[in-house]
Amino acid sequence: MINEKLPKIWYGGDYNPEQWDKPVMEEDLRMFKLAGIDVATLNVFSWALSQPDEDNYDFQWLDEIMDRLHESGTYVCLATSTGAHPAWMAKKYPDVLRVDFEGRKRKFGGRHNSCPNSPTYRKYSALIAEKLAERYKDHPALLIWHISNEYGGYCYCDHCADAFRGWLKERYATLDTLNKAWNTRFWGHTFYEWDEIVPPNALSEEWGTDNTNFQGISLDYRRFMSDSLLDCYKLEYEAIKKHTPHLPITTNLMGTYKPLDYFQWAKYMDVVSWDNYPSLNTPVSLTAMTHDLMRGLKQGQPFMLMEQTPSQQNWQPYNSLKRPGVMKLWSYQAVARGADTVMFFQLRRSVGACEKYHGAVIEHVGHENTRVFRECAELGAELQLLSDSLLDSRVQARVAIVYDWENRWAVELSSGPTVALKYVDEVHKYYDALFQQNIQADLIGTDTDLSGYDIVIAPVLYMVKKGYAKRVEDFVRSGGTFLTTFFSGIVNENDIVTLGGYPGELRNVLGIWAEEIDALFPDQSNQIVMSEPWGELSGDYSCGLLCDLIHTEGAQVKAVYGSDFYQGMPVLTVNQYGSGQAWYVASSPEPSFLQGFISNLCRDKGIVAPIAPIPGVEISQRIKDDRSFLFILNHNDSSVNLELGNLRAIDLLTGQSISSSESLSAKGVLVLEIK
Amino acid sequence: MINEKLPKIWYGGDYNPEQWDKPVMEEDLRMFKLAGIDVATLNVFSWALSQPDEDNYDFQWLDEIMDRLHESGTYVCLATSTGAHPAWMAKKYPDVLRVDFEGRKRKFGGRHNSCPNSPTYRKYSALIAEKLAERYKDHPALLIWHISNEYGGYCYCDHCADAFRGWLKERYATLDTLNKAWNTRFWGHTFYEWDEIVPPNALSEEWGTDNTNFQGISLDYRRFMSDSLLDCYKLEYEAIKKHTPHLPITTNLMGTYKPLDYFQWAKYMDVVSWDNYPSLNTPVSLTAMTHDLMRGLKQGQPFMLMEQTPSQQNWQPYNSLKRPGVMKLWSYQAVARGADTVMFFQLRRSVGACEKYHGAVIEHVGHENTRVFRECAELGAELQLLSDSLLDSRVQARVAIVYDWENRWAVELSSGPTVALKYVDEVHKYYDALFQQNIQADLIGTDTDLSGYDIVIAPVLYMVKKGYAKRVEDFVRSGGTFLTTFFSGIVNENDIVTLGGYPGELRNVLGIWAEEIDALFPDQSNQIVMSEPWGELSGDYSCGLLCDLIHTEGAQVKAVYGSDFYQGMPVLTVNQYGSGQAWYVASSPEPSFLQGFISNLCRDKGIVAPIAPIPGVEISQRIKDDRSFLFILNHNDSSVNLELGNLRAIDLLTGQSISSSESLSAKGVLVLEIK
Amino acid sequence: MINEKLPKIWYGGDYNPEQWDKPVMEEDLRMFKLAGIDVATLNVFSWALSQPDEDNYDFQWLDEIMDRLHESGTYVCLATSTGAHPAWMAKKYPDVLRVDFEGRKRKFGGRHNSCPNSPTYRKYSALIAEKLAERYKDHPALLIWHISNEYGGYCYCDHCADAFRGWLKERYATLDTLNKAWNTRFWGHTFYEWDEIVPPNALSEEWGTDNTNFQGISLDYRRFMSDSLLDCYKLEYEAIKKHTPHLPITTNLMGTYKPLDYFQWAKYMDVVSWDNYPSLNTPVSLTAMTHDLMRGLKQGQPFMLMEQTPSQQNWQPYNSLKRPGVMKLWSYQAVARGADTVMFFQLRRSVGACEKYHGAVIEHVGHENTRVFRECAELGAELQLLSDSLLDSRVQARVAIVYDWENRWAVELSSGPTVALKYVDEVHKYYDALFQQNIQADLIGTDTDLSGYDIVIAPVLYMVKKGYAKRVEDFVRSGGTFLTTFFSGIVNENDIVTLGGYPGELRNVLGIWAEEIDALFPDQSNQIVMSEPWGELSGDYSCGLLCDLIHTEGAQVKAVYGSDFYQGMPVLTVNQYGSGQAWYVASSPEPSFLQGFISNLCRDKGIVAPIAPIPGVEISQRIKDDRSFLFILNHNDSSVNLELGNLRAIDLLTGQSISSSESLSAKGVLVLEIK
Repeated sequence: MINEKLPKIWYGGDYNPEQWDKPVMEEDLRMFKLAGIDVATLNVFSWALSQPDEDNYDFQWLDEIMDRLHESGTYVCLATSTGAHPAWMAKKYPDVLRVDFEGRKRKFGGRHNSCPNSPTYRKYSALIAEKLAERYKDHPALLIWHISNEYGGYCYCDHCADAFRGWLKERYATLDTLNKAWNTRFWGHTFYEWDEIVPPNALSEEWGTDNTNFQGISLDYRRFMSDSLLDCYKLEYEAIKKHTPHLPITTNLMGTYKPLDYFQWAKYMDVVSWDNYPSLNTPVSLTAMTHDLMRGLKQGQPFMLMEQTPSQQNWQPYNSLKRPGVMKLWSYQAVARGADTVMFFQLRRSVGACEKYHGAVIEHVGHENTRVFRECAELGAELQLLSDSLLDSRVQARVAIVYDWENRWAVELSSGPTVALKYVDEVHKYYDALFQQNIQADLIGTDTDLSGYDIVIAPVLYMVKKGYAKRVEDFVRSGGTFLTTFFSGIVNENDIVTLGGYPGELRNVLGIWAEEIDALFPDQSNQIVMSEPWGELSGDYSCGLLCDLIHTEGAQVKAVYGSDFYQGMPVLTVNQYGSGQAWYVASSPEPSFLQGFISNLCRDKGIVAPIAPIPGVEISQRIKDDRSFLFILNHNDSSVNLELGNLRAIDLLTGQSISSSESLSAKGVLVLEIK
Repeated sequence: MINEKLPKIWYGGDYNPEQWDKPVMEEDLRMFKLAGIDVATLNVFSWALSQPDEDNYDFQWLDEIMDRLHESGTYVCLATSTGAHPAWMAKKYPDVLRVDFEGRKRKFGGRHNSCPNSPTYRKYSALIAEKLAERYKDHPALLIWHISNEYGGYCYCDHCADAFRGWLKERYATLDTLNKAWNTRFWGHTFYEWDEIVPPNALSEEWGTDNTNFQGISLDYRRFMSDSLLDCYKLEYEAIKKHTPHLPITTNLMGTYKPLDYFQWAKYMDVVSWDNYPSLNTPVSLTAMTHDLMRGLKQGQPFMLMEQTPSQQNWQPYNSLKRPGVMKLWSYQAVARGADTVMFFQLRRSVGACEKYHGAVIEHVGHENTRVFRECAELGAELQLLSDSLLDSRVQARVAIVYDWENRWAVELSSGPTVALKYVDEVHKYYDALFQQNIQADLIGTDTDLSGYDIVIAPVLYMVKKGYAKRVEDFVRSGGTFLTTFFSGIVNENDIVTLGGYPGELRNVLGIWAEEIDALFPDQSNQIVMSEPWGELSGDYSCGLLCDLIHTEGAQVKAVYGSDFYQGMPVLTVNQYGSGQAWYVASSPEPSFLQGFISNLCRDKGIVAPIAPIPGVEISQRIKDDRSFLFILNHNDSSVNLELGNLRAIDLLTGQSISSSESLSAKGVLVLEIK
Repeated sequence: MINEKLPKIWYGGDYNPEQWDKPVMEEDLRMFKLAGIDVATLNVFSWALSQPDEDNYDFQWLDEIMDRLHESGTYVCLATSTGAHPAWMAKKYPDVLRVDFEGRKRKFGGRHNSCPNSPTYRKYSALIAEKLAERYKDHPALLIWHISNEYGGYCYCDHCADAFRGWLKERYATLDTLNKAWNTRFWGHTFYEWDEIVPPNALSEEWGTDNTNFQGISLDYRRFMSDSLLDCYKLEYEAIKKHTPHLPITTNLMGTYKPLDYFQWAKYMDVVSWDNYPSLNTPVSLTAMTHDLMRGLKQGQPFMLMEQTPSQQNWQPYNSLKRPGVMKLWSYQAVARGADTVMFFQLRRSVGACEKYHGAVIEHVGHENTRVFRECAELGAELQLLSDSLLDSRVQARVAIVYDWENRWAVELSSGPTVALKYVDEVHKYYDALFQQNIQADLIGTDTDLSGYDIVIAPVLYMVKKGYAKRVEDFVRSGGTFLTTFFSGIVNENDIVTLGGYPGELRNVLGIWAEEIDALFPDQSNQIVMSEPWGELSGDYSCGLLCDLIHTEGAQVKAVYGSDFYQGMPVLTVNQYGSGQAWYVASSPEPSFLQGFISNLCRDKGIVAPIAPIPGVEISQRIKDDRSFLFILNHNDSSVNLELGNLRAIDLLTGQSISSSESLSAKGVLVLEIK
């Protein structure tokens, strides 16, 4: 349990009473009760308020709010307020201001605005975190710490340049090693002194989004920046932990947010939390995948849904209302996939500035007689009903999908073969095929042990890190099914090609050689022609994006290309290796192929869905000791009939046993305990 | 009359003989006579010529031109030449150079290039204006002053930052007030010292076009910049007025140009003038609306058409020729809507630099045997015929449309609910509905008295300024018909939400509450379903963009939504309030709805068109004492039959009485005096 | 012959063994032999390697490579390595770093990165070139010098600003002349001191791509920058020539690369070389035209194909593989059009950084058993067969197309009449019409003598340089056929309009006056209506982009516009002038019109194709003394039948006589010697 003080699914969200007159808070507390809200995230952006100048701190305002919340029975997720520095600090110590990708020194404004290598920022962010910890360490309302807010963005200032050189010395020890790692003899970029190295931005090696002359330096700068921001987090973490070793600490992540390697971050987080902001047209399976990724950051440990909107967002181009039932549906989706909290941004809408049209439990009208509030209150009541039953239960998957930030950076920094290759899209294609068939998957990093899985899918495993190929071989040799795709096995951690033929270090386990890689224009396609019918697959399927021209070296051909000069060359192969199989998909297939393919693989492994797939209906399972919970989520705009056969289960929201055939309303949810 | 020296519609335009050898001017004067041209705008960009260095001025070249024009019978609109500073000034006093939105110090180049808070610019621009006034105050050719040229653009330099802080102190007195007005506790932006405040640009709070973290500072910076440029104008105005109190002063505006609040500017202009540059595909009703807006800046006082092209422009992507007749048609459109001048940019085409492919009365060929010249001469002759008959006549409208620059800034700075909401488009939709039915409208500001109107339409009245709701209530209570739309009544002048339910201060008069605001994707729509047939309206109409979800609180429902989860909720309501009615249109309707709707409203008020609508034919009326002039403008590419019934009128261009049925040629114009 | 040491078509390419361990080079040499590779371009980017700091040079690595290549029978094209400066130089002497178009001082990175007016760069680039010349002047492997690499890009730093002022003083002598040449009285830009002039970039007169307030300064800056980079080249050229007067020197150009006026450059090149990188969807006739342009730079002298990819590129959005046969086909296309070398970028794929996915003769797999290698080896064998037979043969064309960099700059810097006018497109339209009919053309500059041609086509000859109109008149008077189009004859070399009516100085020879120029929107078109059938032309053809409204002044009307208000006005005219004809095409026609038109013109001049056109089959002829070589290139994806009638010829690749009917396979090539 995240904190045993509140042994249920936490319900609440960001709350800024310091932006309001005091009577408003009293009204808020009344409504929190109506809505079943029991957690408020405080102090997210109040640094300027608490520290009006360099020498003075004033937390009285926060004391009052903490106390009043406690009296009212609301717990606190306490932020450290370092997500945006005060204006006075920017004026007095300009080193806190970033230099942006274009090389421009920023002025005061916005958020995500502090240079992570600024001595001033590091000093004062840790200091205020420590002051908060000292002050509130024994406060009865305090449940958890929330460091800073949505860490993000990069800086390219001289402090960062210096720190980058230090980071590089640590990593490479000598310039010879570095020059080799970055292949600097290309274009005559050999470095003879450390301080010849400058950050890669629009003034030096990079341009636009993800274009670089040297992948080596660009990759390392991303690692370095992710580490630099993480260092800021760790400074606060340590300052707090000294005083409250017993309390969990988190920071709110942002799903597949590209600039930070969250697998590194999660190591220093007591519990993962994240902010979920799908748009009206985000595929539900992409949201599900992102939950699974967040769960995977700490090997399946339940996570916190730290933010979602009760209805509207404000920063999309077109900010649709969440349709009736959708907020609840998506909240249960989070829980179904491992969340032990349901929290909103925000409890009360702000009255001015750029987020005032972002949805809130309490809208500008200020009372509870709104559709949005009613839906929030309904969910609040249900979460109270569910009590602690689901807490700490785990998803148990036999299939894993590898997701790697560093690999994504490298894939998308690549100059050639195609600009259309987007790592998340390719991962999602495979995830979606599992999702559509109600097969649970874990998203795992490259450090995660593979031996617990039956099937491991690693789409576009372009970068193969030291020792990873060996681990894949061990996995397959021991009976595992491994699957990877085109443009895999190409480079090492520095984006240096593994010579001797693609897919490099994976060539052995896959039993193939990829001689060439053709890039297709968006209006071009090829075909996957099955050599013979296999399970759900037969005939032809469309594919595109990239087409590897492969030769088998031991692998068996399951399908060939249908056209172009490489017609008849293999496009789908399987290699028997030890007791297992290694599959190679040489192009990017259409969804129907992937569903058939994944279905075949799972059937071979005896992996079955708890319920047969129904279009638009999501299934997820959580298990705790001997209890098993099944979530059935109807994303359709109309009700569906569920044929549950002889499934014996209790509907946890009604306490009733379910029957063999149930109707589930549009956007409806069933939370069942299987008996 | 603008100046009684020339009691007719002035005809002429920008003229730069200083760019040419002297014999060319003699040839020009010969052709001016042929074309009936009697006004030349001089000295628009000659600062560098008149002031070759800091200490010396030389106006001899201008003396000669002024005298020669006078001898030849051409009057002068005399510009002050401060629209672009000299190169020597930029080198010697870099403070005249702007810092742009990206934070970059500009170098010498272009025009609109002076920092409005540059001490150097302010000093020397006022000084040269005064020198000109002293020198030419008694020149017989001088008709009017033309200060600078097309003021525009913003600056973000340190001088501006300082001046901005001063402007803010003036407005807010204390930082407490300012912090509250901008809601700076959001994202922890509290200011403790004035000099912590920096201009909002791409280095601080803004990005791209109209994106900001803090609407409060961004709105104020727009006000401040509009004021700063206006201050420059006023410095020159006062310098001139000292010497020529009897002569009118203007500067050329640019229609709906967004960065400057022209309602503030017009207060300091003796006569409004503007530059009209529609493209081939600009709706004629949008041009008409812009004329009406320019007329509205000074409450209906006749204005000057300062610039239009005789044919081609040069800065559009595709610069079509004005088709035969179009230049004349669009000139009369200006006159029909209140212009007492018809002036061109330019009288002679320049031989080099970026405007050399902009049309002119005298083209590069240099003689009068061109289509363009012939059309100019034809119009010149007609304007001589019209003599002083139309001068000082006024448009009399019973319908007003509210147009507010500050509201536009706020609407388009809003983060959410949709990026697709463009203020001018929404205003134009309502204007167009009136225009298509030959109903005259005034475009008015928020200072304008409402009591003279029967119907006041305020599309997207998002920002409700102090006291304005009360004025609307008074207007309606006294029998007026008020109409506003979705996303109205939301904020005050600082973009701070009026709490307690939308549409805030307008909720009382409208008798509704808007609970939520749904944003539709561009490919989505809803329907306006009439509760019962009403006048020209029945059945269903399409609507989109935003859909307010409203509840009536006294208002009557005239139509409901046709689909989505808010199907059946009101989309069109009317509230009886005192003796009047207040209408609310909760979404953005298709044109056919608006035409029926506006037609119903006008019929209820007894407002009738002087002539029944004919597609593509524009009607406008000007009235002076007991004389009434009717303009009929055929924008079609073919002739139309006019059924004029028993209208008794004289064609002012032929002196003939019109008959009950007249044929009007393609692009043809009738200027009638009604008897 | 470029160098008689190697009397055959050179075959090889860029080679960087210094990026590899030594054993790799041995393997490379083995494979070079297999592939028939006899030339390696060395040292392109090794400045940092050879000069590790300011005072030390180390060429031992290069000695070894040169010697080893020589031993192995491979010749060397030796680069000077100055295409990218070392990192230490950027740190120690920041003047080598450019200031970019946005006014930003660059930091170390990329290539094309040296300021051409940097004293440091000029000093050390010439110095290393001289050191290389001294060291290798007698090396037996050395065939040719390759200065720097793909010169390109502009700089806007203070050194460049100073040098620009010096360049301007040289050109204009006085500011009065300059002010007049740039028409600076427009917008009051008169300069009184030289140092008031700043480079035209995004901080001063320009914005985006090709937008400027003053065409005069922008044109001159382009000339100045082209000259500045050329000065850098010349410094190296002279340093080398001192030591190796007998060896040819080149630098690799980039076809129609806009920023550099290659006609000026070619004067200082002993042989032209260029890098040919078409995309999958580049029209083959555009590639052919570019070869012809490169050949035209030195009046038909054979050129070097310095770079092409064996298969894939890496910097296109979608990098298709070159289909089987295409590399060979395109190699022969180069030879057919005048190349005496076939060289690749690159011989071995790099292992890291941004070009590692660019194709190479030796791929990452490292052995010869690849499709790409096999195709390279096949071509290598053929080139050995061809021996010296084709060397020094010339293309002989009776048609010339004028191509002028300065004119292109001016056309595309123009503000109005349309943004859609792209010079290369218009030139290519006329080239393509010739190409489709197997008529050989030369691309010539404005210095080239016209008297050798029967037909001279000058599309959009917007800028008419001093004396050029006279040369056109002489050409026509003597019987030549001259053809130009809309928007021609408008300005002089400073973009100052020639007054008195378009097409200015060409009006006399063309016998027309263009009164107006209409710009069409992309979805608009007009028609060319033939006055009577003429040869292959009759009826109507579509046209668009711009439509000149012309009047004949002696010319005969061959076709008129079909619609709009200028329906019936001439669109195609011909003027008899002396013994010749001058044609004017007043709009941009569809291809079928141009093919008919060009066909008529050629027939009138008795110009006939060596073989009747077959769709997709390219023909080119090279002639040497009394030997004539015919290339037949099948660009189709299927084989074609060639009906060769009584053509008597030997297939040089088989030694066989051809028969009257031959089948040519998809992508196949015939190299015939006509008997």
